[in-house]
Amino acid sequence: MTDDAVLRALREFVAERDWAQFHSPENLAKSVSIEAGELLECFQWSPEFTAEHVNEELADVLTYCYLLADRLGVDPDAIVLDKLAKTRAKYPVEKARGRSTKYDEL
Amino acid sequence: MTDDAVLRALREFVAERDWAQFHSPENLAKSVSIEAGELLECFQWSPEFTAEHVNEELADVLTYCYLLADRLGVDPDAIVLDKLAKTRAKYPVEKARGRSTKYDEL
Amino acid sequence: MTDDAVLRALREFVAERDWAQFHSPENLAKSVSIEAGELLECFQWSPEFTAEHVNEELADVLTYCYLLADRLGVDPDAIVLDKLAKTRAKYPVEKARGRSTKYDEL
Amino acid sequence: MTDDAVLRALREFVAERDWAQFHSPENLAKSVSIEAGELLECFQWSPEFTAEHVNEELADVLTYCYLLADRLGVDPDAIVLDKLAKTRAKYPVEKARGRSTKYDEL
Repeated sequence: MTDDAVLRALREFVAERDWAQFHSPENLAKSVSIEAGELLECFQWSPEFTAEHVNEELADVLTYCYLLADRLGVDPDAIVLDKLAKTRAKYPVEKARGRSTKYDEL
Repeated sequence: MTDDAVLRALREFVAERDWAQFHSPENLAKSVSIEAGELLECFQWSPEFTAEHVNEELADVLTYCYLLADRLGVDPDAIVLDKLAKTRAKYPVEKARGRSTKYDEL
Repeated sequence: MTDDAVLRALREFVAERDWAQFHSPENLAKSVSIEAGELLECFQWSPEFTAEHVNEELADVLTYCYLLADRLGVDPDAIVLDKLAKTRAKYPVEKARGRSTKYDEL
Repeated sequence: MTDDAVLRALREFVAERDWAQFHSPENLAKSVSIEAGELLECFQWSPEFTAEHVNEELADVLTYCYLLADRLGVDPDAIVLDKLAKTRAKYPVEKARGRSTKYDEL
């Protein structure tokens, strides 16, 4: 979310409604899980899906992720890149190529 | 994720490991849920948390969200802003201000 | 869990460790979600699974469900049967037969 | 679910609707996660809750757990007791008493 416009829009939305009082990191983490369940519901009985529905539910997960990042004072893209560096080390190309095996069983 | 650098880094990470074959929208939605559970685990018994741990788990959720958005051909920020417009309409400031009530009970 | 032996075993396990203090309904609900994520992880990249692994993760979800039911003072089987009666009404056989459609779209 | 009445009622409910075709272990695991998210939603913004609502959502999680156990051919109470024996070993009373610390940090 290096696009400041999104961050500004989310902050404004929350401020207008005086909702920061509900947005403890714990409550935002619960909200990410709740919305992730709704996203999964798009695929409950089949791998087929309605794009519009998935986009909306994915947007809800992202929204709470962005709000949590903002609450924690971190940049979403920065933490993704930091974690990617660690994941690269856990899944070396030569071992992980073409396999979905978890790192501790590679 | 208007920052193309993140998108490029994620695509490269996946391509090097030949993992796109596992990244169906359904599998990515499952992955978002799984990682959301790990994020929630940081707050399982208390609202207190270790920032570094939360950042890493949040990064994992975001990573799968970004991969899913990329798989669906949508921009994360664009779908967040689209959804925000709808949420604004469901939660008018005058009704929602200072209340955590769900829209269908406002 | 009409089998009192299970309920007694769980209560004893918790009492010995003095863990009831952590088992608020909210914390138990978080725990159900966290463990549900671990169960889902058994199927993250494929519908194939290791039975032993699934059994263990399913047991963890059930354990927290039983603890939450006990904390709420309800019998797991009783609430399942109560809810089943409501679900029967929402999904009449003639409409729902052979279809995975959600009730509000039937 | 040693109470055969519940198992029989669930099987009958599924058979009448010809829904076993949708109940792969993977789909049932997804369903457990989805319903766990709805249970968590009862506590999204506060530890306070409506008992009736929580009971219903908990019943949904339990229902899918029971259906998954039945699909796997295992008894819910038996796997809970098996897992409890392992958890007892991971959390010895003398180390775990009064602490919510995870076993790998005890």
